[in-house]
Amino acid sequence: MDQDINSNPEGSAYGRPMHHHDAELVEVGPGTPCGEFMRRYWHPVALSADVTTTPQKVRILGEDLILFRDGRGRPGLLTPRCSHRGTSLYYGKVDDDGIRCCYHGWQFDVQGRCIDQPCEPQGGLAKNRIRQPWYPVEEIYGLVFAYMGPPAKKPVLPRWEVFEKLAPGQSIYVHGYTGFGVGADDTIKIVPMNWLQSYENIMDPFHVPMLHTRHRAVQYTPEAGHLPQVTYESTELGLNYIAHRKMKDGSTVERVSSAMMPLIMVVPDQKLEIGEPTSYIRWITPVDDQSHALFHAIRVPPGVDGRELFLNVSRPMPMGTSKMWSEMTEEEHQRHPTDWEAMVSQGPITLHSEEHLATSDNGVMTLRRLLKRQIMTVREGGDPMGVAFDPAKAVNKVTAGNYKRNAPEKALA
Amino acid sequence: MDQDINSNPEGSAYGRPMHHHDAELVEVGPGTPCGEFMRRYWHPVALSADVTTTPQKVRILGEDLILFRDGRGRPGLLTPRCSHRGTSLYYGKVDDDGIRCCYHGWQFDVQGRCIDQPCEPQGGLAKNRIRQPWYPVEEIYGLVFAYMGPPAKKPVLPRWEVFEKLAPGQSIYVHGYTGFGVGADDTIKIVPMNWLQSYENIMDPFHVPMLHTRHRAVQYTPEAGHLPQVTYESTELGLNYIAHRKMKDGSTVERVSSAMMPLIMVVPDQKLEIGEPTSYIRWITPVDDQSHALFHAIRVPPGVDGRELFLNVSRPMPMGTSKMWSEMTEEEHQRHPTDWEAMVSQGPITLHSEEHLATSDNGVMTLRRLLKRQIMTVREGGDPMGVAFDPAKAVNKVTAGNYKRNAPEKALA
Amino acid sequence: MDQDINSNPEGSAYGRPMHHHDAELVEVGPGTPCGEFMRRYWHPVALSADVTTTPQKVRILGEDLILFRDGRGRPGLLTPRCSHRGTSLYYGKVDDDGIRCCYHGWQFDVQGRCIDQPCEPQGGLAKNRIRQPWYPVEEIYGLVFAYMGPPAKKPVLPRWEVFEKLAPGQSIYVHGYTGFGVGADDTIKIVPMNWLQSYENIMDPFHVPMLHTRHRAVQYTPEAGHLPQVTYESTELGLNYIAHRKMKDGSTVERVSSAMMPLIMVVPDQKLEIGEPTSYIRWITPVDDQSHALFHAIRVPPGVDGRELFLNVSRPMPMGTSKMWSEMTEEEHQRHPTDWEAMVSQGPITLHSEEHLATSDNGVMTLRRLLKRQIMTVREGGDPMGVAFDPAKAVNKVTAGNYKRNAPEKALA
Repeated sequence: MDQDINSNPEGSAYGRPMHHHDAELVEVGPGTPCGEFMRRYWHPVALSADVTTTPQKVRILGEDLILFRDGRGRPGLLTPRCSHRGTSLYYGKVDDDGIRCCYHGWQFDVQGRCIDQPCEPQGGLAKNRIRQPWYPVEEIYGLVFAYMGPPAKKPVLPRWEVFEKLAPGQSIYVHGYTGFGVGADDTIKIVPMNWLQSYENIMDPFHVPMLHTRHRAVQYTPEAGHLPQVTYESTELGLNYIAHRKMKDGSTVERVSSAMMPLIMVVPDQKLEIGEPTSYIRWITPVDDQSHALFHAIRVPPGVDGRELFLNVSRPMPMGTSKMWSEMTEEEHQRHPTDWEAMVSQGPITLHSEEHLATSDNGVMTLRRLLKRQIMTVREGGDPMGVAFDPAKAVNKVTAGNYKRNAPEKALA
Repeated sequence: MDQDINSNPEGSAYGRPMHHHDAELVEVGPGTPCGEFMRRYWHPVALSADVTTTPQKVRILGEDLILFRDGRGRPGLLTPRCSHRGTSLYYGKVDDDGIRCCYHGWQFDVQGRCIDQPCEPQGGLAKNRIRQPWYPVEEIYGLVFAYMGPPAKKPVLPRWEVFEKLAPGQSIYVHGYTGFGVGADDTIKIVPMNWLQSYENIMDPFHVPMLHTRHRAVQYTPEAGHLPQVTYESTELGLNYIAHRKMKDGSTVERVSSAMMPLIMVVPDQKLEIGEPTSYIRWITPVDDQSHALFHAIRVPPGVDGRELFLNVSRPMPMGTSKMWSEMTEEEHQRHPTDWEAMVSQGPITLHSEEHLATSDNGVMTLRRLLKRQIMTVREGGDPMGVAFDPAKAVNKVTAGNYKRNAPEKALA
Repeated sequence: MDQDINSNPEGSAYGRPMHHHDAELVEVGPGTPCGEFMRRYWHPVALSADVTTTPQKVRILGEDLILFRDGRGRPGLLTPRCSHRGTSLYYGKVDDDGIRCCYHGWQFDVQGRCIDQPCEPQGGLAKNRIRQPWYPVEEIYGLVFAYMGPPAKKPVLPRWEVFEKLAPGQSIYVHGYTGFGVGADDTIKIVPMNWLQSYENIMDPFHVPMLHTRHRAVQYTPEAGHLPQVTYESTELGLNYIAHRKMKDGSTVERVSSAMMPLIMVVPDQKLEIGEPTSYIRWITPVDDQSHALFHAIRVPPGVDGRELFLNVSRPMPMGTSKMWSEMTEEEHQRHPTDWEAMVSQGPITLHSEEHLATSDNGVMTLRRLLKRQIMTVREGGDPMGVAFDPAKAVNKVTAGNYKRNAPEKALA
């Protein structure tokens, strides 16, 4: 008993230190370093078809907002508390000109201008001094995007080559809000954990053979159980990983997946079909520090049902049970975990200081470093990767896809 | 991009300041400025008929208490944790002499005196040193009132002329707890927001034409859609607003509504029937900073059923649906908001620093100033408006009502 | 009105002070004084039969842990967050060698050693540097015990004479988790209050005649309604109370109940059967500061069903209704309170500063002093009462029981 009682040669849990998350990297509220970085981009906040004259509540980057479409078809995104006395515009009435608060009838247009104060003399002689706080919204491809950053830094809304110049009969199918790792279960709209846990999953090729294939059930294809040979490469908009596979015919297939700033993911077809760049894009939208959702846009070939295509290519999980994810028992979730269980069980925000990253976490580490550099750039007054102010530069290219090529591999430090 | 990125000529929601409630004005816990002001008055805490030998939990001004009636008919209001070891007197057994804790049998009378300690030698030789903290309660008109302030400042329990000297066959009908803005829905007992949001609603004549008439459905009468001409006047006990209406016969009808200190509301008949002062009084009772309830007392003419009269005169809402409020769908609440939706959506405590009050908020502003003056008076050692220590001055008059008169109008600054 | 408004001769609840619990005495989290004391002992955490290859969540002394049994039959208790990236081992897969995280397949043995990193080159060249934090567990009598203290201070696992050297046909029946004061209701597993509230109940002979007998219904025997004559005595492992009863034949029966360090309770048969030391032991296991559970072990005579015996001797409550505790209405709980209502209504942690302890609380006071001395001893570097490091001293004796004797009584100061 002479031994120092605090020594711990056996790795006992006794006396282990407290751990914490990396706040600068993952917190997105107003005024936070990462929140300011995120606010330099447009984020999808709803499907266009869902935005009507009935006001709806949305929560984006930790801010509660009211989204609606006025009678002239213009979408509007306002803070919920009426500038007058704080009643929620969720109970407002929308007409051609804007939204009217239920309590005393103040009316605001989609840019927050107060256009009527019906209880005031002459409809409000000073109403021009009132402005309901608002954010710009724009629509493209059937999605409503919002810009929640400093007005002077508003970039052009990005467009995507794979969705432009559609061939005859082609269309774009959009979907959201959805969860992550719940397969085709559309009852799940919000994932109760930090956005980065989902985002870095896309730069983590090695969980596929483990979680999705070997652990209990084959969630994709049996071949996914082989450990891939992986390299990483920087791109104009972010980071790619390339999984190299020798084929029976001696050729090499490179499967390229992309993470693009700030929260865009492109993952190619699982069946390794060789061809054009992937025409399916996913966006993560942070609800707040502890939850997020996904939006999807996919190019649909002529004669194909968009929803069916979407379900086929994007949502094979879960396996090991024929139930929908939300119908599974606790025991089934425990027996057949998928991304949801693996990532949500990391906690609402994982404890980064406690991790032990290894060589197979190269993609995760590289993505975090890339994010940290962007956060620092914004902090120092610069513009982060991928924002464009020139409409001529609004169209982005997708580089993800399955390719047959012999190019020398570049490893990323 | 040379522009200061923090400038905000467009009223963007980006970078908007944080807002807060006015703690001094609205928080009512022990030791707070407003809480001390509120504690100088008697507050209704239950209907007399509901107070029995079965102990019940009540929460008033942020304090949890146990209310019961001993076998001799005396109501008692004690702190819940037994002075002995903290077991709740909610599980106590009541007899003629008081309430007995279930754990070790200590017994207290309605004034908290410890009258038995059955496990102690000779029933407790030192039991006189024990006093269960208690508050005085008195009953009148079928309501139980409590005084939770400093003993030396206990005023006489106010009486009301409209409820005294009842004519033969007249009676008083009482009702509570009830919500606010839920019409006849008695399943709602507590309103989840600060008391002031309801109280100032009574000094806000202009929400009637907007919320209750024009917004979606006519909740009172179509005539309520006209903007009234309104003046305000100070009274001995608080504040009146007077809505002036020219009648077809050339006369003027003045509809006088009263807010009396600290939390009393008298609103005259909606049908503008001319006559005596209104004989229907409502009290707001703060449960805590974020919730409150209402009590009602109404004088009933001979041969009339009190409950029916109460439902007729007090509870016309909601319109636009035939459902009870608590049965309405979320969509129906959104489509047919009433006071509840308008005020509860201001938040548990509205953010006063964010408001933009206008001329039509004169009543709200005047009421808040009046409350602030009372709070200051108590803070400086004085007695607030309307408390009387002389039993001869216990009887108050109601001034609210519908009157035909030609008196010159007084506007309040 | 000249009187000081803060004087309070009437014991009014107005202006009463805030109260608090005794943190040093009752908080058990890592690093707290009492937590360090508690961590010097083995605590039961599960029944052996319940520990399988399916990982389960347990929470002990405020720490969340994962308990499982590997394929070779060894129980393991690890921290839940995988050392790699924080995914919960609750979703892990167990085989002969240990538990494997679902996300990237890191595998740990029951002592936390990392034995495989399948995504790393050659299964993890540096895996020896990784240790999943773990606690030692041992099994005896059908219970799994954990030691959560400093490794250098790990005592031998206590054994009990009453469970050793079983006669032919004798067996040991174990049960848990269970609540306290809910009778035979096995749906209640966790008691939502601090452990001390249950523990000191066992050194409180006087609540039996009050709560369990006189209050509403006779929960044990009518004789329990008589106030006992009680003395206290220190023991090697803690504290006994002795209830003295004169029998009709002139003899004296002494009923001895034991509280042993840190959280062991032995209460003899209620029917005062004279005989051997009691062979039924209960352990309280703190879940965290605000909840705890109980484990039971009872020696079963030949030919007797263990579960039936357990239900007979340990779980007579509640009375006054034939329902199970969890099926009782709120009104029935209020009318027929038992230990649960008496103690849970003291709050998640009772407010010790508000208590008024009296002579009948001698056992409670003595037990608290004893605990405080042990806490101080640990704080000063010593070993608390009842821990043994010599396997030869592992076997403890039970002194509780019903005895016929004439020994002079010793009162404890």
